[in-house]
Amino acid sequence: MKLTILGCHSATPRWDAHPTSQVLEIKGHLFLIDCGEGTQVQLRKCKVKFARIRHIFISHLHGDHFFGLVGLISTFRLLGREAELNVYGPKGIKEAITLQLKLGNSWTNYPLLFHELDSKEPELLFEDDKVSVASIPLKHRVYTNGFLFREKPGERKLDINAVKEANVNMSYYHKIKQGFDVVNEDGITIDNSKITLDPEPSKSYAFCSDTVYFPEIIPQITNITTLYHESTFLKEHQELAIKTKHSTALEAATIASEANVGTLILGHYSGRYGNYEHFRKEANEVFENVELAEDGKVFKL
Amino acid sequence: MKLTILGCHSATPRWDAHPTSQVLEIKGHLFLIDCGEGTQVQLRKCKVKFARIRHIFISHLHGDHFFGLVGLISTFRLLGREAELNVYGPKGIKEAITLQLKLGNSWTNYPLLFHELDSKEPELLFEDDKVSVASIPLKHRVYTNGFLFREKPGERKLDINAVKEANVNMSYYHKIKQGFDVVNEDGITIDNSKITLDPEPSKSYAFCSDTVYFPEIIPQITNITTLYHESTFLKEHQELAIKTKHSTALEAATIASEANVGTLILGHYSGRYGNYEHFRKEANEVFENVELAEDGKVFKL
Repeated sequence: MKLTILGCHSATPRWDAHPTSQVLEIKGHLFLIDCGEGTQVQLRKCKVKFARIRHIFISHLHGDHFFGLVGLISTFRLLGREAELNVYGPKGIKEAITLQLKLGNSWTNYPLLFHELDSKEPELLFEDDKVSVASIPLKHRVYTNGFLFREKPGERKLDINAVKEANVNMSYYHKIKQGFDVVNEDGITIDNSKITLDPEPSKSYAFCSDTVYFPEIIPQITNITTLYHESTFLKEHQELAIKTKHSTALEAATIASEANVGTLILGHYSGRYGNYEHFRKEANEVFENVELAEDGKVFKL
Repeated sequence: MKLTILGCHSATPRWDAHPTSQVLEIKGHLFLIDCGEGTQVQLRKCKVKFARIRHIFISHLHGDHFFGLVGLISTFRLLGREAELNVYGPKGIKEAITLQLKLGNSWTNYPLLFHELDSKEPELLFEDDKVSVASIPLKHRVYTNGFLFREKPGERKLDINAVKEANVNMSYYHKIKQGFDVVNEDGITIDNSKITLDPEPSKSYAFCSDTVYFPEIIPQITNITTLYHESTFLKEHQELAIKTKHSTALEAATIASEANVGTLILGHYSGRYGNYEHFRKEANEVFENVELAEDGKVFKL
């Protein structure tokens, strides 16, 4: 699982501070999460093979999270894309995009499917045999969702020595990896746990931005591998966080701690701060494993 | 008159090639012409004091000419703008922008006025005592206008020696500069042309992009100081120019020559070309004073 931060700054794009967008590579998928203005340029700069993106998840319809989407969709058309593109985002996103394409008389020549969200409960948005994606309802000034990406458990691993010793025919190996008990060459039933090892633990990633401190999300993200949680402000600006429905670094870390996540990544910094190490320091008061998002930074999760 | 090229490349934004946008500084005005994705970042990079922009002219509703507009409008809001902003562009532009602002629950806190265009004849869009702006109907795949910016003639210049010699009272100087004849201290009427010099010649700038070769514009732009004319292609790709309703460098230069303009600036290059000097060379076949637009380049006109 690889997370590329294309942009992690709040509000207006600046020369050296890009608005929110990330790419999550997981089990062969390339998921794009949010798409602020300039995302298509960041995708090129970060050398993401963006034709491989088939699913785009938009948290909410503030400009710094979605003004780059229509440009990316148009660029896909100009590059001759044929593969289907799925866009998941708040109700209204379809009209906003299609109106602009229509005005430019430039509809896409590939299937563009919108999945509009308006539920206040978590929903399963995408699922295949390797991964699932669910929404995480957040609390912000407009309707907003985070997204929870989960690898499905892999197959059990053959314990080759044990299998050989148990005298099991090779033709059963596929069944064994799926967790079944099998009968060996001597007619004896072999318990699956005796001849297999646990698969690699499944990984999971939650993106939570933008949101006020909202502990209601904790049950849904408990024990996940990595949490990206917005920290627009430091606690010295707590009143601004409440007013604008954003979180402080301390609040993000409190969520991470209560949910017992593996690692917390902070981002969506307000432009008022110079040194982002203050965010880490503040978060470290209640949670140890804190990373700072940076534009262009890649996290191997 | 100062022209800053923020972007001069066609179609999709790239790391080193920005879509169309320019700032024209003329008689104290800062006019923004087109607004492709990333324009607000280019404005910062080029150190344009963009709070001073009060009029934005959008040629047409293809993404590479207007996908940056909604972001710029939002940024003005975040920066606390209070001054009125006027947007001139094709019918539909108001709905595209307001829908997106509405979805983000973020209407502007400054007056935002749309002037939607649908005429196929030139129209006067803006005028004050120093400058006028008119539309130049072009011919492209969607409804498109160029824009003609004209300084109004300045006041006549006092020929100080002649004025003194003519024994004219200082209190008449303002009238003299306005072109009136005056009576001197001896009661003699002094012909204005004897005591004044011609003002600096008025300058004019026409922006013509995007368009197929369209000689109908020549009468409107005859004798202007500077013409920016798109040259998406070289003549070796004439058939592509016709198909996509763009121009070649040769065609742009032919327009410049027929209209007897002072200088031709070429731009809106297709991404297929590496060396833009080929555009200048091709244009020079029929027109001498050719300049090449470059992102970030400033022309003093």
